[in-house]
Amino acid sequence: MERLKQAIRTRGKVLSDDVLKVDTFLNHQIDTELMIAIGKEFARLYSENNITKVLTIESSGIAPSFMAATELKAPLIFARKKKSLTMNHDVYVSQVYSFTKRETNDITVSKDFLAAGDRVLIIDDFLANGQAALGLIDIVKQANASIAGFGIVIEKSFQGGRKQLEEQGYRVESLARIQSLQAGSVTFVDDFAAVRS
Amino acid sequence: MERLKQAIRTRGKVLSDDVLKVDTFLNHQIDTELMIAIGKEFARLYSENNITKVLTIESSGIAPSFMAATELKAPLIFARKKKSLTMNHDVYVSQVYSFTKRETNDITVSKDFLAAGDRVLIIDDFLANGQAALGLIDIVKQANASIAGFGIVIEKSFQGGRKQLEEQGYRVESLARIQSLQAGSVTFVDDFAAVRS
Repeated sequence: MERLKQAIRTRGKVLSDDVLKVDTFLNHQIDTELMIAIGKEFARLYSENNITKVLTIESSGIAPSFMAATELKAPLIFARKKKSLTMNHDVYVSQVYSFTKRETNDITVSKDFLAAGDRVLIIDDFLANGQAALGLIDIVKQANASIAGFGIVIEKSFQGGRKQLEEQGYRVESLARIQSLQAGSVTFVDDFAAVRS
Repeated sequence: MERLKQAIRTRGKVLSDDVLKVDTFLNHQIDTELMIAIGKEFARLYSENNITKVLTIESSGIAPSFMAATELKAPLIFARKKKSLTMNHDVYVSQVYSFTKRETNDITVSKDFLAAGDRVLIIDDFLANGQAALGLIDIVKQANASIAGFGIVIEKSFQGGRKQLEEQGYRVESLARIQSLQAGSVTFVDDFAAVRS
């Protein structure tokens, strides 16, 4: 998605070979016009898939999934992150390890909002190692619902997340795929392909 | 806002004299159509106020403020909640005490996103005791920006939040004002006025 790549190029900040900061438009200050375009693109990609629920994870997943859910006429559910597990039989729970923060969080979704028969589109702001995605898959499986696929705003293609999801047979649609953050600059997968061809 | 009151009546759940659960449409599962209507109403109410930034707090403030920011053509910023303060000179920090959770959290906003000259609309899902609102005021003051007013989805008018904000001279626009949650049912301020008049 060219408009997103342009935002990453001009308003993103490469902090290291692994870390891209996009808090000017995605996960602290939000460019709502760009988020609407992103949400509509996810909706277009999954328009034929009879989506009944859009599932994301707080907080940064909410803005890019908002318009996707609106266009698909499906409720948006955001999984909640919690530090510690309080026993609660009303929620599905999974564990997500964060490599950045070096800690494991529980994520929870109320049993009221996901059930067998639901066809779920999972949206998140980043796909890196895929830990959050695996936690969300686990929750959808606990609900005996099915997954139509993933909508990712920014994929760090040099990490293992996409590979893991594809090996499990999931469809992954990423609107910007980053090949490398080396030497302080962003190279996208398709730029790379273009250079090679 | 009649449509919101109807959602509270039919899809909300009174858990106690103090607690209204609205996770079916506002703060876990999100009814994006209703959130769009809410956001547009905030934008209409503040359309003459030259808003340059919409400020909310993660996670539940993001959905209802999304369309307000879009319509006002202003960036949306969400304050981040953190358990503990890591010293960081790049952010404004304030403390918010939660009566429900009986704990104090830091809230932070990057100095990159609020500055002198900004005219800020503060939006939140609930106004109860006003602790979150006071923290957000503190942050806007640290930035030497000014506050146009508050947009609140649900005000618990039997708690002290509105009074505190009005005493400090702030405009408070609440789309649903709850007079009482006693005896397991919701009474709105205007229903109450209607009965009295």
